[in-house]
Amino acid sequence: MPRLRLALGQTNPLVGDFAGNSEQILDAARRAHAQGAELLAVGEMAISGYPIEDLASRPSFLAAARNAVVALAERLHEEGLSELPVIVGHPDGPFEKRSEVTSNAPTAIAQNCASVLHRGRVIARYAKHHLPNYSVFDEFRVFIPGDELLVLGLKGVDVAVIVCEDLWRDDGPVSRVLETDAGLLVVVNASPFERDKDEVRLPLVNRRATEAESVVAYVNIVGGQDDLVFDGDSVVVDATGKILARAPKFREHLLVVDVEVAPPRHATLPPNTNRVEISPDPVAAEAAPLPRDVAELPDDREQLWNALVLGTRDYVKKNGFRSVILGLSGGIDSAVCAAIAADAIGAENVYGVGMPSRYSSEGSRTDADDLAERIGLHYTVEPIADLVLPVETQLKLTGIAAENLQARIRGIILMAESNMHGHLVLTTGNKTELSVGYSTIYGDSAGGFAPIKDVPKTLVRELALWRNSIAVSSGSTPPIPDNSITKPPSAELRPDQLDEDTLPPYDVLDGILDAYVTRALGREDVITLGYDAETVDFVTRLVDGAEWKRRQGAIGPKISGMAFGRDRRLPITYRAG
Amino acid sequence: MPRLRLALGQTNPLVGDFAGNSEQILDAARRAHAQGAELLAVGEMAISGYPIEDLASRPSFLAAARNAVVALAERLHEEGLSELPVIVGHPDGPFEKRSEVTSNAPTAIAQNCASVLHRGRVIARYAKHHLPNYSVFDEFRVFIPGDELLVLGLKGVDVAVIVCEDLWRDDGPVSRVLETDAGLLVVVNASPFERDKDEVRLPLVNRRATEAESVVAYVNIVGGQDDLVFDGDSVVVDATGKILARAPKFREHLLVVDVEVAPPRHATLPPNTNRVEISPDPVAAEAAPLPRDVAELPDDREQLWNALVLGTRDYVKKNGFRSVILGLSGGIDSAVCAAIAADAIGAENVYGVGMPSRYSSEGSRTDADDLAERIGLHYTVEPIADLVLPVETQLKLTGIAAENLQARIRGIILMAESNMHGHLVLTTGNKTELSVGYSTIYGDSAGGFAPIKDVPKTLVRELALWRNSIAVSSGSTPPIPDNSITKPPSAELRPDQLDEDTLPPYDVLDGILDAYVTRALGREDVITLGYDAETVDFVTRLVDGAEWKRRQGAIGPKISGMAFGRDRRLPITYRAG
Repeated sequence: MPRLRLALGQTNPLVGDFAGNSEQILDAARRAHAQGAELLAVGEMAISGYPIEDLASRPSFLAAARNAVVALAERLHEEGLSELPVIVGHPDGPFEKRSEVTSNAPTAIAQNCASVLHRGRVIARYAKHHLPNYSVFDEFRVFIPGDELLVLGLKGVDVAVIVCEDLWRDDGPVSRVLETDAGLLVVVNASPFERDKDEVRLPLVNRRATEAESVVAYVNIVGGQDDLVFDGDSVVVDATGKILARAPKFREHLLVVDVEVAPPRHATLPPNTNRVEISPDPVAAEAAPLPRDVAELPDDREQLWNALVLGTRDYVKKNGFRSVILGLSGGIDSAVCAAIAADAIGAENVYGVGMPSRYSSEGSRTDADDLAERIGLHYTVEPIADLVLPVETQLKLTGIAAENLQARIRGIILMAESNMHGHLVLTTGNKTELSVGYSTIYGDSAGGFAPIKDVPKTLVRELALWRNSIAVSSGSTPPIPDNSITKPPSAELRPDQLDEDTLPPYDVLDGILDAYVTRALGREDVITLGYDAETVDFVTRLVDGAEWKRRQGAIGPKISGMAFGRDRRLPITYRAG
Repeated sequence: MPRLRLALGQTNPLVGDFAGNSEQILDAARRAHAQGAELLAVGEMAISGYPIEDLASRPSFLAAARNAVVALAERLHEEGLSELPVIVGHPDGPFEKRSEVTSNAPTAIAQNCASVLHRGRVIARYAKHHLPNYSVFDEFRVFIPGDELLVLGLKGVDVAVIVCEDLWRDDGPVSRVLETDAGLLVVVNASPFERDKDEVRLPLVNRRATEAESVVAYVNIVGGQDDLVFDGDSVVVDATGKILARAPKFREHLLVVDVEVAPPRHATLPPNTNRVEISPDPVAAEAAPLPRDVAELPDDREQLWNALVLGTRDYVKKNGFRSVILGLSGGIDSAVCAAIAADAIGAENVYGVGMPSRYSSEGSRTDADDLAERIGLHYTVEPIADLVLPVETQLKLTGIAAENLQARIRGIILMAESNMHGHLVLTTGNKTELSVGYSTIYGDSAGGFAPIKDVPKTLVRELALWRNSIAVSSGSTPPIPDNSITKPPSAELRPDQLDEDTLPPYDVLDGILDAYVTRALGREDVITLGYDAETVDFVTRLVDGAEWKRRQGAIGPKISGMAFGRDRRLPITYRAG
């Protein structure tokens, strides 16, 4: 069977940074060429970043994207790389509006494309057929679907090209690849991380390979973009579904692999197929064999941790920050956020502030000190008692108002330090708190990025234990004080307060929230799982009532199948059953 | 020609309040029956409220909606109203998922329907064909499109029924109504207010009437739901496009009108048409003539004001608040918000707080006092100097950090009063500020609802003048002090500060923002309008850089074609050109 040396470039684009994104692709092409690759593919929208949201409806943005694709083809040619065909994802347009709508609403004018660059020109283009419009995706809003197949004739074999969602649909263009007789199917993707998504994604790739009787090359982008974390994990499987090569998750990588590709057996193509001959030459003589490049899949906790670290690092860097600041309470949430931040951008760029009140226990102060020392971050202490008292006295505050005041004074301190020194404020709330509204808006929720907003409290604890265990096994200092992990959670806004005075135990609470929020079950179905009806009603009422707070919350990395944000769109004004 | 007495019920539903929404429809049916109506139609999703967003993917919500429709049919029967056919909008499902998607993402399981209730039963159902998925709408995300036509045989005439967006598409089912030979087309709608939308909506209704050679009855819901304000404006036009009846905007109304309906001329129907015979009886003998009910269209400023008032009132009431609180600076924004709030829920439920700092001018204090007295709202003064100083001193704050601190202490005061007394906090920022980020996050932006967030500064001024002039002409006290309208805008966060020290003059700024934000033009196109390139770049950079703040902002009533929120979806992490 003919052999093809294939390269997949797992790049980390930034939305709108056409120059920087192109430079990454060019770098991948240089390295692919140096290794003798005969075809390079990079991810969906690798030129523009993904998701571009309503930027897809701006003709100026589309013009810039088109220029960037043409310029990249020319740069490849100038650098002597133009014999290497490069498949690159990009938005294209403007095209005629999808349909006659009498309103003045902006409608889709763009397509989500993969183009082939060769000998200094754009020689072929494929437009994505299936536009995901569920979960975090709004593609039907901004893109016009394509309806043609693309097949490249390359060194005696046929290569079909599709984009992301096209692979997921049984009724999609992937079902016609068998008819095209292509021996290699290249899928360019921008597929964000979700816990356990590998368990769906890799079997899908395998299934498609066997269905299409074709090698499948799946290339994904990597990196954080707002609340999404693209995890890479690009993979090549043979026609039996066997993994030939696999890129590491959560970092940039160039995956190069030799694949045996079956040549086409008959000459006819299915209707609506665009076949472009790139080079009629047979595959070159045997090159030196490549080292096997199959990354190990990290375990669940390592994947989650790395997703949070990458999401945080890329939010900081891509938005032009150099440092972060966060409040350190001595509790587990702020400790885990500090450890994530230090892993993301280095402890030397992390600023922690202890803000003890009259209700803060001695233990909390010690735990915060201990954390700062273990991680080696910058640490200052700003007691809040003298700042809280004048407000409390002048306004005669009691109860919840007085409790929230403390959290809001802390928010003021962090925002003031941010304004003085340019740090990004991290807010340390977890998904459980966010679900039930157990936080003070404009107080502890203040900040530009929320590293653990999609991590339930029980999982925060598991991740803390995991991160410490990794430190132990590598001989370094565990970052998180044991005491922060083991002591009962408390907001410490009044004397001897414990979270469980107000909320169900966290294992019960997280179980109900997993069912009601993440799996979107109804009340009856949650109760059927074995939870007490009264507790379920209490929790679901809290969740529904906290929607207004969540709408005003910072973004943070999505790691679950249902993160707060555009993944879960519900009204604020709503009377529950 | 046969005559039909037709009633359109312009109800104000609340999302999820099936009992309350049904009660409104029942009340409309009672009144319609009393006036001899032979057909009643209410709006799209009048049973459930609109938009229901991802509630459409909850089987429990759909079951509740289905039960509510059945229960309404039974109630109508029990009350002796069941000879009156009622067309009611509601979600229906769960149905099979739209397509085989291998991911576990929730996909549409519901349809957006209009059902016909008669003699205690649901006798016919129409499912919306065209699902708007642009602007604020996400219907393709949550609904499965229908593909059948519905024609009702009623007293010798044929009545076609469609839903909202179906009317807007030239290629939609409306194009087949002529073939059905229906003499009356009933369109049930949930169409939110936008400035100048009448100029599109009514001509569309007229055009469809003449195209279909049919009377068109357009019934819309009314009321605020989160950031949308449904404006009613239900209308009936004859087959030449002449207005026969029109409901007032921005309030509930039952519109009853006698229409001459052409009987069907031939017996065949287009394919995929469901014809349901309701009653073969001819139209009843002449009843007493109805008074002409054609509401005057209010002028532009009155419409805008009423939209803001209704949006604010319904947010307050539907979320269970009884009172609001806001800071009164003496400036025009807080003055206009106070006047809107007083018009919405009565001055006796509005609490104003003056929070002067050492930089507040004597004039500002006097203007705030004056405003409070003119409106007759509750007014207290909380000087902030003694609260700001301890923080400023302890943290050694200067510059922007010290300026923001003042705004944040004010935010703390309002939130503390809200926590003590249960008031909803209104935040008073206008669209211009929000566009360029000229506000302090967690400071003056703190609050649950933002009445003027979609109103540019120059329009705030026009509305203030309009509201005062209305007061003058009705002989009451103009609510807004002249001085608040005429003095140069200032944030008063440092001595002698004026907005125009930092920003371009507001007429220039609002012109650029209208082009860049509301009309979504690119940089070059904005400059072509005659604006200075450097100013355009300055402004667009500010707009792009303020996205993170806007994401954390309160919701407020949409009045423009492009409001911040789900109307305009852009990344935070983004490198512009």
